[in-house]
Amino acid sequence: MSSNRMIHDVAIVAMGCTPFRDHWTSSADDLVVEAVNEAVAGVAGLTLSDIDAFWVGTQGSGMSGQTLSKPLRMSGKPVTRVENYCATGSEAFRNAAYAVASGAYDMVMAAGVEKLKDANVSGLTAVWPPADGSDVDWTAPAGFSLLAPAYQSAHGVDDQTLRQVLTAIAVKNHANGALNERAQFRKPVSAETVEKAPRIAGPLGVMDCSGVSDGAATAILVRAEDAHKYTDKPIFLRGMGFVSGSGEGLATDGYDFSTFPEVVEAARVAYEQAGVTDPATQIDLAEVHDCFTPTELVLMEDLGFSERGKGWRDVLDGRYELSGALPVNPDGGLKSFGHPIGATGLRMMFEAWLQLRGEAGKRQVPDAELALTQNLGGQPGSCVAFVAVLGNALGGEKR
Amino acid sequence: MSSNRMIHDVAIVAMGCTPFRDHWTSSADDLVVEAVNEAVAGVAGLTLSDIDAFWVGTQGSGMSGQTLSKPLRMSGKPVTRVENYCATGSEAFRNAAYAVASGAYDMVMAAGVEKLKDANVSGLTAVWPPADGSDVDWTAPAGFSLLAPAYQSAHGVDDQTLRQVLTAIAVKNHANGALNERAQFRKPVSAETVEKAPRIAGPLGVMDCSGVSDGAATAILVRAEDAHKYTDKPIFLRGMGFVSGSGEGLATDGYDFSTFPEVVEAARVAYEQAGVTDPATQIDLAEVHDCFTPTELVLMEDLGFSERGKGWRDVLDGRYELSGALPVNPDGGLKSFGHPIGATGLRMMFEAWLQLRGEAGKRQVPDAELALTQNLGGQPGSCVAFVAVLGNALGGEKR
Repeated sequence: MSSNRMIHDVAIVAMGCTPFRDHWTSSADDLVVEAVNEAVAGVAGLTLSDIDAFWVGTQGSGMSGQTLSKPLRMSGKPVTRVENYCATGSEAFRNAAYAVASGAYDMVMAAGVEKLKDANVSGLTAVWPPADGSDVDWTAPAGFSLLAPAYQSAHGVDDQTLRQVLTAIAVKNHANGALNERAQFRKPVSAETVEKAPRIAGPLGVMDCSGVSDGAATAILVRAEDAHKYTDKPIFLRGMGFVSGSGEGLATDGYDFSTFPEVVEAARVAYEQAGVTDPATQIDLAEVHDCFTPTELVLMEDLGFSERGKGWRDVLDGRYELSGALPVNPDGGLKSFGHPIGATGLRMMFEAWLQLRGEAGKRQVPDAELALTQNLGGQPGSCVAFVAVLGNALGGEKR
Repeated sequence: MSSNRMIHDVAIVAMGCTPFRDHWTSSADDLVVEAVNEAVAGVAGLTLSDIDAFWVGTQGSGMSGQTLSKPLRMSGKPVTRVENYCATGSEAFRNAAYAVASGAYDMVMAAGVEKLKDANVSGLTAVWPPADGSDVDWTAPAGFSLLAPAYQSAHGVDDQTLRQVLTAIAVKNHANGALNERAQFRKPVSAETVEKAPRIAGPLGVMDCSGVSDGAATAILVRAEDAHKYTDKPIFLRGMGFVSGSGEGLATDGYDFSTFPEVVEAARVAYEQAGVTDPATQIDLAEVHDCFTPTELVLMEDLGFSERGKGWRDVLDGRYELSGALPVNPDGGLKSFGHPIGATGLRMMFEAWLQLRGEAGKRQVPDAELALTQNLGGQPGSCVAFVAVLGNALGGEKR
């Protein structure tokens, strides 16, 4: 059953993450090498050859495992490419985790990379029309803009209030990103800036949208019992759910754009594995897929952080701010840290890694013991969803 | 270490494989659904919803896990897309195997699909120039043609003998494919037909090349101890190696085109796991990656079936024919069965499945107990390689 525990628990013992930027002078190869080197340097005495197998996630910045082995000039190691829309980075992590849990390998690496401005990814603003001949008939901003009126209609939220909520999310994530040297957009924005931004799709202005970014991120995984050989402060995978929708949603009459059923199910699996019964109080911080501001609003309810229909109020009450009860996207999120597709899921884990180790500096969430990452791919109605619960201790209920 | 056993052994309990054809009237969606349905029908009482998670391999016939979930109209299940050049189908199998071995899922499916004539795959004859903007500067026939003179030079084989060897491989694989209803090219060819075929690259004529094919194949995997719940005749994964080259080979002075180091290493890992010490006598049949006739020649030596430099003689002696000591590509291989990229690795396993169950009809290898599949991606110098050893019993030495 999909709610089974893995037979062997898994830990992260090192991570890397490039700054997310417009990296005009670095190739995708340069970026992934930088993120690999940072992770390898994170374990004293470790070399690349100590790692048994690799998974690399990219949507449009390479084909095959040689997306990683070629820039590393690395022969004789298994390298697998995975791709699952914008959840590609989380899939690199998930497949690496199963392989090390299976006992096939003792130490594995998950890597994610995208140089989005050079990539060929259908349906995103970076490249239009799609060069791969696919039958894409949407853009991401248009697809996600549909969440806003659906949420309003489902929960009786007027236009002015909705705008305040979306603005609060954008302002929060930029405020967090301003504290983060690795974020792409490192400055606070005012409510006025968000609200006067040029309109993109439906109620979404440009400041409701994540940017076009280049970057890479990596994680080194071992079985939990081996973790303390490599670091004094490993973090542990406590639960992991991944779910694909049918992709038929948009074609279905009455499809409900005020929720992502795939996120609800992925969270259910991850919470069950992790022993989380009340995420709103047990999770200390969350990195979620704020590709557009209404996405973050809907996710607060789908993840069980807010009661259904009450997320908008919790946002306005500051519950998800860095100083709030449950900081969401303390690193700035897709909105401010950036969204190089293949790297994003692992970038979220990088913040969980820092926070759970107490190394998040000005963004540190006090006493963080349990973190969630949630990564989405596709769009409403055609969506894949990943949820992981990570802890600074192994197993059992939160202390 | 990469030579570790998986902690839990894995078995295949059902498979499916469409005929490989020019499927002018079937889409990639149609093909993968057909292969899924055949596998599911292979277990009495099984339905799609009994399968916990899915891996789909395709290089150019879809993006994301929805390559599978959308045609199946299947919501709420995890579906992962993997891609690793022409070894994509084997990678779907490998990642599915790790996941079920890890205990994360009890029953998983690996699927592979390509509708090659509609796909966008760089460097293949189907689409040129590459529409994805990649910096490909080769074609597959040109790349693999380099094996022939390298082999001649390394082992002192003259032009006329080489031609006889390559012709023998083509004639053999077509003879085998002629016995296979599911093969794309189902007729024997004469040596004269092979040798008078139009020239493609170097010494390669069109009859030295695999075709452009459409098709799909699937496997249902469980942990070994559960296998007999689902079938009286499961087959067991006894060893599995996967290796990526650096991709720098072609740029390296003195690169040796008479061998694939990646295949040698992948085979070493698979043999060690399977307890195979003398593949030439222990393996009963093999499905290998005969994308071009010289590839099969080189593989006979890289897999340890022939002594180094003696493969050409073993080919001429009929060792690898259906009636020989070690039948190679009894189903016709890429050459005659066809090569829809994402499906090929699983198509090879489909023949192992039939042979090890004694269900291969006119192609049946007597008393087949141990089969090998070997799948290659990329090209000489820029290669990924997969080797699996499959048996009709679990563990231990061959009986």
